[in-house]
Amino acid sequence: MKLVTLDEIDAAARRIGSHIVRTPLLAAGWGDPDRPLWLKPENLQPIGAFKIRGAFNALGRLDPEVRARGVVAYSSGNHAQAVAYAAAAFRVAAHIVMPEETPAVKVQATRDRGANVVLCGAGQRESVAAELVERTGGVLVPPFDHPDVIAGQGTIGLEIAQDLADVASVFIPISGGGLASGVGTAIRALCPRAEIFGVEPELAADTAESLAAGHRVEWPVAQRNRTIADGLRSAPSALTFAHLQRVLDDVITVTEDEIRSAVRDLAHRAHLVAEPSGAVALAGYRKAAAPPGPAVVIVSGGNVDPVLLADILSGGR
Amino acid sequence: MKLVTLDEIDAAARRIGSHIVRTPLLAAGWGDPDRPLWLKPENLQPIGAFKIRGAFNALGRLDPEVRARGVVAYSSGNHAQAVAYAAAAFRVAAHIVMPEETPAVKVQATRDRGANVVLCGAGQRESVAAELVERTGGVLVPPFDHPDVIAGQGTIGLEIAQDLADVASVFIPISGGGLASGVGTAIRALCPRAEIFGVEPELAADTAESLAAGHRVEWPVAQRNRTIADGLRSAPSALTFAHLQRVLDDVITVTEDEIRSAVRDLAHRAHLVAEPSGAVALAGYRKAAAPPGPAVVIVSGGNVDPVLLADILSGGR
Repeated sequence: MKLVTLDEIDAAARRIGSHIVRTPLLAAGWGDPDRPLWLKPENLQPIGAFKIRGAFNALGRLDPEVRARGVVAYSSGNHAQAVAYAAAAFRVAAHIVMPEETPAVKVQATRDRGANVVLCGAGQRESVAAELVERTGGVLVPPFDHPDVIAGQGTIGLEIAQDLADVASVFIPISGGGLASGVGTAIRALCPRAEIFGVEPELAADTAESLAAGHRVEWPVAQRNRTIADGLRSAPSALTFAHLQRVLDDVITVTEDEIRSAVRDLAHRAHLVAEPSGAVALAGYRKAAAPPGPAVVIVSGGNVDPVLLADILSGGR
Repeated sequence: MKLVTLDEIDAAARRIGSHIVRTPLLAAGWGDPDRPLWLKPENLQPIGAFKIRGAFNALGRLDPEVRARGVVAYSSGNHAQAVAYAAAAFRVAAHIVMPEETPAVKVQATRDRGANVVLCGAGQRESVAAELVERTGGVLVPPFDHPDVIAGQGTIGLEIAQDLADVASVFIPISGGGLASGVGTAIRALCPRAEIFGVEPELAADTAESLAAGHRVEWPVAQRNRTIADGLRSAPSALTFAHLQRVLDDVITVTEDEIRSAVRDLAHRAHLVAEPSGAVALAGYRKAAAPPGPAVVIVSGGNVDPVLLADILSGGR
């Protein structure tokens, strides 16, 4: 299987540079001074999550005539916002397939970005997206299972290597695995001594089990859906799993309480609002046995429901 | 009166560059697309506030032999943290005078940075600081009433001008006026067409009244202390007032509810935790009558008590 290369990630960085925030590394003042911790705040991107990098790279890679036919995506979360945002920037149509049970506020947010939202029943999103591709001639932009998406997310790894050449460990949340595939590829190439950790909720730890087994082990959707980290309920594809096998040193799993605690610490000590999925990597760092420093934790997103945020910050469980 | 110059701010930028975060401008997706709004997130600085810029510049300007005798400051807030942090970086002693009623957590945070904290009774902080200067030979670093502090805060204005040359309006919180003096000086020099707005709580609107009167009007401390924006309870000095008269186009005053609402918007829409003082400039932007765009709002700090933050995000008043 052909894996994404550093050259492709370099090209992605040039392609998306003017569309994204080059997020700074923020020194987290807490923790062991001999092994400093840095945060990469991707929650500060437009749309509030790293997904914008992959979306811009995927759209930017299309031939202009092809892109002009529009793009199609299925997602109820950050990928929907990212594709809608990137399509608006390129002034092309975006058709976003969302499950009927998607909260109205998220549907409206996607429409507000100019996208055409198509609601669908449970389990139908892929077939509805395929119909849209057929009917509109638009190109499907998958949330993680595509080299251009992986290369786009990998630009985070390039920036880490540029800003902190002696990085000794990197902590990355895992869901479909696009982020960890891309970042891991860049870090492996540029900082070969760094240890690369994926982090998963215990309630959606299919990747930890899969890597231990040496092949993908499927967890039922209903099981993965138990975690509060609603951005981490997907499972790797064959493509991303092949990357993860190559680039990860280990996967750390964290409890729901550890995730909530990490959301609180990011708010109180780093002044960042993270969604639970975006705080999982910090929870993993804190659980790791003496991770080598300097360490970088990717704060992958900040789109959390206001009621849930208030509950977590009030100490609710 | 000699005012701070652009050259002094340029020199400050070179002096402090390696010690601070060069904060990015973040596009706020909401609001009028024809007059885009940008946020300057100084809450992401080490110690969580812009004050670190002035503190590093003031310490950096000292002769090494003088600096080696240590520094003295009085503050219960972000200036205390900033001076303690900068002194630790320069490996010199910091003596911080704090009122006896300072919350224990803030005293401990200052001690954790290696500072010697000296508690004092109400109204005694300046005399106690003077005694410390006398006894230790250390140099007093005032929170705003000093050209080096003003020049350090002004580096924020330089960065805004570099990143957004066509900036049309800038919103800056006002307390002692050091931040607005420095940023205003830089923006006046580099972006002469931009309008510069100071923003104050209605409950501590002494600067608005003073500028209207053409001279400083003193508000009793107890009156200024009513606002939730605990970082905005100081009053300008003769030096900062002279700058404010020169650089501000107007001062906007905001209510306590408007400040709370701005804290909520920053958390929910920009994924930034701001303290009430740090959200005041956004409240001012929202209250201004059609401010010219692109506009920049300075989010000046993020050090908010966790209980208060949870209360505000829960919609409490």
